[in-house]
Amino acid sequence: MGNADDMNPSAESYNLDATGRHRVAVPPPQPFVRSLKNTLKETFFPDDPLRQFKNQPPTRKFILGLQYVFPILEWGPRYTLQFFRADLIAGITIASLAIPQGISYAKLANLPPILGLYSSFVPALVYAVMGSSRDLAVGTVAVGSLLMASMLGNVVNIQENPKLYLHLAFTATFFTGLFEALLGIFRLGFIVDFLSHATIVGFMGGAATVVCLQQLKGILGLEHFTHATDVVSVMRSIFSQTHKSKKKPRLFWISAMAPLTSVILGSILVYLTHAEKHGVQVIGHLKKGINPPSIMDLNFDSVYLPTAIKTGIVTGVISLAEGIAVGRSFAMFKNYHIDGNKEMIAFGMMNIVGPFSRSAVNFNAGCKTAVSNIVMALSVMITLLFLTPLFHYTPLVVLSAIIIAAMLGIIDYEAAIHLWHVDKFDFLVCMSAYIGVVFANIEIGLVMAIGLSVLRVLLFVARPRTLVLGNIPDSKVYRSVDQYQNANNVPGILILEIDAPIYFANTNYLRERISRWIDDEEDKLKSSGEMVGLQYVILDLTAVANIDTSGISMLDEVKKIIDRRGLKLALANPGGEVMKKLNKAKFLETIGQEWIFLTVGEAVGACNYMLHSCNTKTTSDVSEKYSNSV
Amino acid sequence: MGNADDMNPSAESYNLDATGRHRVAVPPPQPFVRSLKNTLKETFFPDDPLRQFKNQPPTRKFILGLQYVFPILEWGPRYTLQFFRADLIAGITIASLAIPQGISYAKLANLPPILGLYSSFVPALVYAVMGSSRDLAVGTVAVGSLLMASMLGNVVNIQENPKLYLHLAFTATFFTGLFEALLGIFRLGFIVDFLSHATIVGFMGGAATVVCLQQLKGILGLEHFTHATDVVSVMRSIFSQTHKSKKKPRLFWISAMAPLTSVILGSILVYLTHAEKHGVQVIGHLKKGINPPSIMDLNFDSVYLPTAIKTGIVTGVISLAEGIAVGRSFAMFKNYHIDGNKEMIAFGMMNIVGPFSRSAVNFNAGCKTAVSNIVMALSVMITLLFLTPLFHYTPLVVLSAIIIAAMLGIIDYEAAIHLWHVDKFDFLVCMSAYIGVVFANIEIGLVMAIGLSVLRVLLFVARPRTLVLGNIPDSKVYRSVDQYQNANNVPGILILEIDAPIYFANTNYLRERISRWIDDEEDKLKSSGEMVGLQYVILDLTAVANIDTSGISMLDEVKKIIDRRGLKLALANPGGEVMKKLNKAKFLETIGQEWIFLTVGEAVGACNYMLHSCNTKTTSDVSEKYSNSV
Repeated sequence: MGNADDMNPSAESYNLDATGRHRVAVPPPQPFVRSLKNTLKETFFPDDPLRQFKNQPPTRKFILGLQYVFPILEWGPRYTLQFFRADLIAGITIASLAIPQGISYAKLANLPPILGLYSSFVPALVYAVMGSSRDLAVGTVAVGSLLMASMLGNVVNIQENPKLYLHLAFTATFFTGLFEALLGIFRLGFIVDFLSHATIVGFMGGAATVVCLQQLKGILGLEHFTHATDVVSVMRSIFSQTHKSKKKPRLFWISAMAPLTSVILGSILVYLTHAEKHGVQVIGHLKKGINPPSIMDLNFDSVYLPTAIKTGIVTGVISLAEGIAVGRSFAMFKNYHIDGNKEMIAFGMMNIVGPFSRSAVNFNAGCKTAVSNIVMALSVMITLLFLTPLFHYTPLVVLSAIIIAAMLGIIDYEAAIHLWHVDKFDFLVCMSAYIGVVFANIEIGLVMAIGLSVLRVLLFVARPRTLVLGNIPDSKVYRSVDQYQNANNVPGILILEIDAPIYFANTNYLRERISRWIDDEEDKLKSSGEMVGLQYVILDLTAVANIDTSGISMLDEVKKIIDRRGLKLALANPGGEVMKKLNKAKFLETIGQEWIFLTVGEAVGACNYMLHSCNTKTTSDVSEKYSNSV
Repeated sequence: MGNADDMNPSAESYNLDATGRHRVAVPPPQPFVRSLKNTLKETFFPDDPLRQFKNQPPTRKFILGLQYVFPILEWGPRYTLQFFRADLIAGITIASLAIPQGISYAKLANLPPILGLYSSFVPALVYAVMGSSRDLAVGTVAVGSLLMASMLGNVVNIQENPKLYLHLAFTATFFTGLFEALLGIFRLGFIVDFLSHATIVGFMGGAATVVCLQQLKGILGLEHFTHATDVVSVMRSIFSQTHKSKKKPRLFWISAMAPLTSVILGSILVYLTHAEKHGVQVIGHLKKGINPPSIMDLNFDSVYLPTAIKTGIVTGVISLAEGIAVGRSFAMFKNYHIDGNKEMIAFGMMNIVGPFSRSAVNFNAGCKTAVSNIVMALSVMITLLFLTPLFHYTPLVVLSAIIIAAMLGIIDYEAAIHLWHVDKFDFLVCMSAYIGVVFANIEIGLVMAIGLSVLRVLLFVARPRTLVLGNIPDSKVYRSVDQYQNANNVPGILILEIDAPIYFANTNYLRERISRWIDDEEDKLKSSGEMVGLQYVILDLTAVANIDTSGISMLDEVKKIIDRRGLKLALANPGGEVMKKLNKAKFLETIGQEWIFLTVGEAVGACNYMLHSCNTKTTSDVSEKYSNSV
């Protein structure tokens, strides 16, 4: 019998055997440690970050290392004056957006408006030094703080205890940073991958809806905003705005400048008409100057710590997912590489002092390097030092308008429609996120969406599709008869393709399903009164990437079932992993090497040969012929 | 351009086109509702339970329906005297095992020994009527109550409040039953599938270890047992024993009778020597008669309810998983069918009065039908009514011995070694279950094992393998060069096989990985100083069973990346689902129908044709040629 031992690859063992069929190889045995090493590498270092370090002199390695941690060292030396001009313009543009937005979102989060400005410039500097995206402009996510507001609001009443609230906000941000940095350092980038595009669309649409509804209050001059929130909508909103404005960059300038303009006009108007005395709410006094480091303000009180950590982690994951997505989409345009894990570390560092936003403006403002972030930071700093009094008269209505304008850009119903057309399940995920956020809250929306997405992956494995294959006319190719209407069944032979790895989660299902296919086939043949009954079952394992021990015992049982029905089981094209395990589990000997084929075509050929040459029940002679030659 | 519209299947559209290549078909469009219906059917009714009802007259349908719910109606009429003789012997054999075990395990669970006997006969009757396995003998799982003991023990102190404890035990069993029945009614059988073979081996080994350690106390006559637990070990133990005893069924009788024998001998010895007066613990008084229905004793006090429910569910899942596994393995021998969901309902009904055990004995005692269960039930009932006094003098040591004997059979180290050889990850799962149970507790062990198993499924999708394909000598077949040492790379063409569905969870990884493969290939070509550089990248989508919207945009980006490098992207053999979605998402138009091939062979053929005929950079003429003919 062609058992496992004479299957280990050796030059001649691959030649065609006497019956002109190819050998299915068991891949060369690999030491456990090495295969483990490979697996871990693929899991945690898919982007092979140390690629560039290979065979370099130590000093070069050191420099590369520094550049890896601080990309600024890489592009810094090559920095020119034209670059600077571009960056200057870009920086100022962003600032013009950053300042009103900073104030708006701080206000939204029930934080002192001034904080919005602070958090615009420190993180920007950090990212300029550590970030790997040249276009991702960073600054306030008071929007991020909005998420906090909604979560912190549950434990602290902002009216009763504003100071505690403020400190918790700092603490949560700190944990966001810590969490992101750790994810990056431990190469857990792929956690973020579990937020699908559909999830983000639905989630942000929902958040934007909620925020808009609350802003209407602001516009109607009602009591200041409740603590609802979305996360990275601003970035996305502007991103989508610029998408629209791709064709006419002139108009883009207007949309980028609009917020600042309206703030200025609004303020002047109020100042002249003294409207603030007639009930129009204004920002009021902003204290000048840079704020003291907030390390002192961190609150690790065990009562609030869980909330702070939870808030921090949720904020972290969302902002990362979006930040990396946006950064990557720009990287696509300019063809450079974004290292997800590196990004996380950078974001983390930023968040340990405060979060980010506003890429697309930067990109469209034609920035060349992260220097634009530095310029932006400086302009904001100048504003802080000298210009804050100007905002005294800015009416809150304007801020609300700015926010709503940003939010409306986010509710991406076209994307939702696209999802419905292309992939119903993605649409379901998207909707559940949207509805969860709008009618319940952020966490529920997220959990629902992610839960569904993961469930889909599990169901894919738990309920793999099994396809009946037929022969494509004038070819030796066998394909699904559902997909190819012209594929012809082969009389007496049932060919099944299994479309997923055979794991514990689907062994029971596959056993049931395969026997059902056999029943159906035999019923069909009976009813159609075929001369030749079912004789062979061929399992095409091409799409079975892997198998576990439960899967192997399932194959064992399937073989028993098929034998008992007086049929023969053949396997077509089992992959390397599968062959390895079938070999170790001695299943190759159970089924017999001569029943394993390189292609469905060869399997069918052999079966037909036996069908027509000799009595199919005693294929021993053919088997002998095979096994001898094997 | 060969866009989607002219691809809808129509007889002629499948003919070879002018260039002699086959068309890749988009499967005929299916109304959303029907495809949804199919999906749900496959998910919840994989075994097609209503199959036999198809085209039957209504009266027949009704009878079949009754038989479906109560299998006894199916075999009852065909019942003969020989059957009864076999069942009688089998029933008595089981009883001889059931009685001592019932008492032992009740004692273990700190429940009155008498309960062990009660729960041996009522469930047996239920299962006899409703169960679909002829060989699964049901009765006490005071072992199941052991699991309860450990979980209930945390909230109630048996010494202080034995009555409350007893009632909670009843309540938990009730919920076990309710949960199992619901699972079955809602066709959620597949939840049990997520307990892999590896998990069960490790879990039961661990539990058995714990129980043995505690029994030693019993043997050494220490204070009575702590509340530790395993679940279905008895069944498995006897199952494995009989496996060993397959060859010599004579000996099997001994092993089956042993417990009763030792109980009798032990009791007589104590009775004669009056050892009970000298510190040998005995069972003591057992009250005669049938116990009052325990419905009154259910305790729904909100303080204890959560624990009761939790305990019930854990017990339920485990016992189901094992019960179905064992039942199925017998069904294998005798070639009849076990309906997982129906089993659940039956088990559920049983548990609403108490759990099960002891299949293998039944099987080896050669029972013919579930009547053996009835016989067993009757014998136990007789024991209850008249023979309980005999157990007065049974020394606890004997019970401990019986338990340990059963447990030792369970620690299936051979299975663990097999796992290590065949599948390292399964071994890891098994060990984590074992260690979790031994060093922490049942729940932790389970959660660890199931968590790992699910993680594996997720990782399979999050980090799919990508394989480089080469040509198998003297064939048009392309296979992994890792598996087939003799497969030859095709100069100028990189062929990649993706081994998993392209879902949100792996899009980022695949993007990175594919570009890395391209880099590596180009480096290799450079270093080897090949004449012809890399020109084409062929993605073999055979193993890509499905794709979501994130996946499609990933393909879009990959195409951009490849175009930018001046290469050409071709797809080979996308499946029905994939073609459907690529079509809806208009990706077929982006890439061009002429770049999608039925097989890798044809793709390579076309690429080579272009490589050698015309300048590869401008393949437009060829494309035209294709698309016109398309």
